[in-house]
Amino acid sequence: MLVQSVRRASKILQELAVAGPRLGVSELAERIGVAKPTVHALLRTLEAEKLVVQDVETGKYLLGPALLHLGNAYLDTHLLRTRSLTWADSLASRANEAVWVAVLTGDRVLVVHHAFRPQGTVQILEVGASIPWNTCALGKAIVAFTGEADREALLAGELPVLTGASINDRDQLADQLEQVRRVGYAVEDQESALGDAGIAAPVFDRSGLPVGAIGLVGPVERLLAEQARETHAILVREVARNLSRDLGAARTAGPRGV
Amino acid sequence: MLVQSVRRASKILQELAVAGPRLGVSELAERIGVAKPTVHALLRTLEAEKLVVQDVETGKYLLGPALLHLGNAYLDTHLLRTRSLTWADSLASRANEAVWVAVLTGDRVLVVHHAFRPQGTVQILEVGASIPWNTCALGKAIVAFTGEADREALLAGELPVLTGASINDRDQLADQLEQVRRVGYAVEDQESALGDAGIAAPVFDRSGLPVGAIGLVGPVERLLAEQARETHAILVREVARNLSRDLGAARTAGPRGV
Repeated sequence: MLVQSVRRASKILQELAVAGPRLGVSELAERIGVAKPTVHALLRTLEAEKLVVQDVETGKYLLGPALLHLGNAYLDTHLLRTRSLTWADSLASRANEAVWVAVLTGDRVLVVHHAFRPQGTVQILEVGASIPWNTCALGKAIVAFTGEADREALLAGELPVLTGASINDRDQLADQLEQVRRVGYAVEDQESALGDAGIAAPVFDRSGLPVGAIGLVGPVERLLAEQARETHAILVREVARNLSRDLGAARTAGPRGV
Repeated sequence: MLVQSVRRASKILQELAVAGPRLGVSELAERIGVAKPTVHALLRTLEAEKLVVQDVETGKYLLGPALLHLGNAYLDTHLLRTRSLTWADSLASRANEAVWVAVLTGDRVLVVHHAFRPQGTVQILEVGASIPWNTCALGKAIVAFTGEADREALLAGELPVLTGASINDRDQLADQLEQVRRVGYAVEDQESALGDAGIAAPVFDRSGLPVGAIGLVGPVERLLAEQARETHAILVREVARNLSRDLGAARTAGPRGV
């Protein structure tokens, strides 16, 4: 049995995260389909826990600072993330590109670590970003090695289109995943943002299933240039395998072992 | 009226954040003083909302990925943080030091933005870090300009000691805050970590009250050296004032206006 008020409180937080910074009691009541007095009591409780704050001027509600603290604690206790720090730094400096580490949550990948490109200009930290799995190399790398039932469910689900290059044809995606299983890495060619490319490989733990992926992200001209592409892919696959061993994966896990 | 089950769910998340990565149902029941079946129902609800995950091997619970997503959404909707991005970058490059932007939550400051030192070596992102207000320049800068009642309450509260240089004498701290109000910036000399120093100034919005602080963080030898200290302080105060204007503060807000 699930606890209804906790579900509703979570829906309030999600609405505030998605719908915008400031919502009032009436707007929230309408969005989550619950009576205003109930929403009011939930908001006051969330406020006491610093999970939301009320804007003094407008009386509307915003997400609260406790969420940042909890989100940070999630990162600190996340084994893949903590183990990936040095590997990501080493990959970033060897490839001279930015590195992302991500996990699959639902049908999106969540970036849990971002190592900046060493000689880069101003870069925006993308930790916490969430991207449809089918539009990025990280997502395809994970899903390719996920159990068949889960993979079929993801392929049968919603496949968002973010750019003209996004792939939302199931058969074409299934073929790509088959290819990822053969070569051990996945490629994204401007499928989530124009001009951006990615190369990623799955990371396994001792269960033999992927716990996430690590990969390079950068301009398509640099990342997927004729020669660079293969060099990058080999680097990414090697670092992903080392990180997997760090997490207790068997030597045979991954591309050849599945 | 607060909603008890939501409070308990929040306590579970806090316990998992503080007490360590993995706790079982019995441990959690004991820590928050609630019967095991209740905790179990709360955990299943939190799990359905991806706020916690259950470790497959041990059956214990960890914080879930939805928290990272919500924490990131908090940052994106946080006005001080979004407005501070360019100011922090500019301060970091002018001072060639790392810059932190923080808010006060309870009796701790929470780092909401961290601009790396431009020519620095590997740096760990400190966004989400939380520090007792009395041990850092950011906290002292905010509290100095907070309303008198709140300031007295903070001075009367717990004043943690993190290093031999931490100040937990109320009179001494009150004197320091008086000094901060006079000069418009606060200094930390190894009060939260040996070897580290900070210089910070308060940021105001149109309410005339501080919404946070911005400051430099770095090795004490570099930050507080005879000449550097004053140059840094002037820079920090200037950037804090510009950021305040960006947030709608009156020209007179801050040191001279209070």
